[in-house]
Amino acid sequence: MTEPRLEPIYALLAANNLDAVAIVPGSNFKRLFSIDFHLMERPLVILIPNKSDPVAIVPRLEMGSFDSLNFQGPVFSWPDEEGYGEAFAAAADCLPELTTARNFGLEAQRMRVFEQMALQKVFPSAVFSDAHAEISAIRLIKTSNEIENLKKAIQISEAALEMTLQQVELGQTEKQIEAILLKELFANGADGLAFEPIVAAGENSAQPHASARHNYKIKEGDALMFDFGASWNGYNADITRTFFVKQVSEHDRAFYETVLRANERGKQVSRAGTTAHEVDDQVQKVLENSQFAQFRRHKTGHGLGLDVHEAPQIMRGNRTTLQAGMVFTVEPGLYREGECGVRIEDDVVVTDNGVECLTSFPRELRLVATTVT
Amino acid sequence: MTEPRLEPIYALLAANNLDAVAIVPGSNFKRLFSIDFHLMERPLVILIPNKSDPVAIVPRLEMGSFDSLNFQGPVFSWPDEEGYGEAFAAAADCLPELTTARNFGLEAQRMRVFEQMALQKVFPSAVFSDAHAEISAIRLIKTSNEIENLKKAIQISEAALEMTLQQVELGQTEKQIEAILLKELFANGADGLAFEPIVAAGENSAQPHASARHNYKIKEGDALMFDFGASWNGYNADITRTFFVKQVSEHDRAFYETVLRANERGKQVSRAGTTAHEVDDQVQKVLENSQFAQFRRHKTGHGLGLDVHEAPQIMRGNRTTLQAGMVFTVEPGLYREGECGVRIEDDVVVTDNGVECLTSFPRELRLVATTVT
Repeated sequence: MTEPRLEPIYALLAANNLDAVAIVPGSNFKRLFSIDFHLMERPLVILIPNKSDPVAIVPRLEMGSFDSLNFQGPVFSWPDEEGYGEAFAAAADCLPELTTARNFGLEAQRMRVFEQMALQKVFPSAVFSDAHAEISAIRLIKTSNEIENLKKAIQISEAALEMTLQQVELGQTEKQIEAILLKELFANGADGLAFEPIVAAGENSAQPHASARHNYKIKEGDALMFDFGASWNGYNADITRTFFVKQVSEHDRAFYETVLRANERGKQVSRAGTTAHEVDDQVQKVLENSQFAQFRRHKTGHGLGLDVHEAPQIMRGNRTTLQAGMVFTVEPGLYREGECGVRIEDDVVVTDNGVECLTSFPRELRLVATTVT
Repeated sequence: MTEPRLEPIYALLAANNLDAVAIVPGSNFKRLFSIDFHLMERPLVILIPNKSDPVAIVPRLEMGSFDSLNFQGPVFSWPDEEGYGEAFAAAADCLPELTTARNFGLEAQRMRVFEQMALQKVFPSAVFSDAHAEISAIRLIKTSNEIENLKKAIQISEAALEMTLQQVELGQTEKQIEAILLKELFANGADGLAFEPIVAAGENSAQPHASARHNYKIKEGDALMFDFGASWNGYNADITRTFFVKQVSEHDRAFYETVLRANERGKQVSRAGTTAHEVDDQVQKVLENSQFAQFRRHKTGHGLGLDVHEAPQIMRGNRTTLQAGMVFTVEPGLYREGECGVRIEDDVVVTDNGVECLTSFPRELRLVATTVT
């Protein structure tokens, strides 16, 4: 109980009447311990009981990195050739108070089933519940240092997008344009990718999670959607812009402007004290009250930070009250299957008076590949 | 039961006396259905019962992409605003024979706990077992098309490494060198990254899974380790080379040559008919019989394909018999904590007579940053 950084975990154990929680590598791990590990076939689990020091189960080959945590509690490492069973058993042996305990909370959207199975084997009385939201709540309010990391990731992303657009030409494939974007992201200093970028043109843009095609060449009048982000020091940008190739029809322009109004509405109504439900409701109403209501497909957005998708989900039904320091995306979209999709996504941080928009790439309808080639 | 591509799954259901298996997005999904989906906060699960057609639970916003699967069976999509509970319930309703079934196999190293919880809720009799190895066995033997994809990923990786080395200069930070590598990977045509690259110099190279540091500048005599890979069409390269900056001590040279001999031994003894245990045993013996025995930290390698780490694990105790078409890494390493680490990793495909080494980047000890700057 000597680790100040674990205080929020001990608080949630008490508040939720949990006997223990288990943490695996990932964003909560990084926020708690400042470093992270790969989540692989080798389980690395930290058990935090409500009445004693945490216990760690660590693959032997990670021990060098793990030592830098200055971990306060017993550590059971396991070598590849013996497997992890004995390390879990040894961890259980030094936590006798958990032998009969029932209430174990897990990061259920992160922990894999085989790690739960390993815990179940050595804690046969354990009943596991999904404490993902409760544990992840430690990341809801961003520190100024976290905001700085996000701003840097976004600045790199926007610079890369502008340089990419200047290289887009009629007849390039989606994959070729994706390769330009990737090159520019790293040339502009990205640490890594927040996620595999989406570069989708024409009817492919009508798939919210499209993959770039090797065999489709962009042509006049196509929508061209980029949904991507750099990561910086573990923090992720997530930005979407949709352009049109050389020209845009009046119908597509109206389609675009509808999404843009929804995007603007989302940023306008977001502030500390309102709810995630209310923001999505206002955004959806812009779309629902338009001529394009039938082309809605998804909620307004999601939290953003060490995870690309985290709390708060900006959707109807989520009564979470927004607080200063929360960061989320505002990314309404419309999708005419087989024809055209438009999504415009910004990243915002909640302030007392509204939001600060972290993304600044222009949102006015823009034509690309306009130079004669 | 009309889908020929699911035949191996129906065969494993019968062989393992399972009532059903559940598949989530990832490498097995991609091998079975040719396309893949992001694994996010939205569950997408395909249930394959042993006696009837498969059933899918799909987030509504993925339906456009999912339609391209030409899926043979009922599909229950769920919208963000209602959540996924009803879709799971509806899927269970159309599989009455599973209501009292007990034996459910899961991809336990891939599926997350919350997806299992959603299944448990609608199949209360279900007892879940880890069928990850059995399901993933569909990917053990690579097709010639898969080998071609791996070769392309490796060719891109090796070209990027050579171009990176030519830009390495004394005084650059690990992060700067990592940025050059990333830029070169995408400039050379990478689709994506197999994993976050490891670029580690000096004592950082002694951490098997090191992260590049912003504040460490490479200096004369440092080891400089690159462990990285491009991905191509979903297939992953995984290559490690260790260089020395400007000069190398005799002690480090002997250290390097020991790892190189272990690497060569691994490739020499690998062939169809031998076991994964035997390969690792032979490799470990080279290290154990050297003056550096105490600096061993890990097994010889792992399978490689759509996953960066998959079967077969090349380690003592794994009695899997190697078969032609299996692909794995041979990556012995030695790690002198606080001083220097060396790892040399190749990717090989098993043939009847031995292995074909897919990686060809030279392994002779090489000095970098040797030009006057």
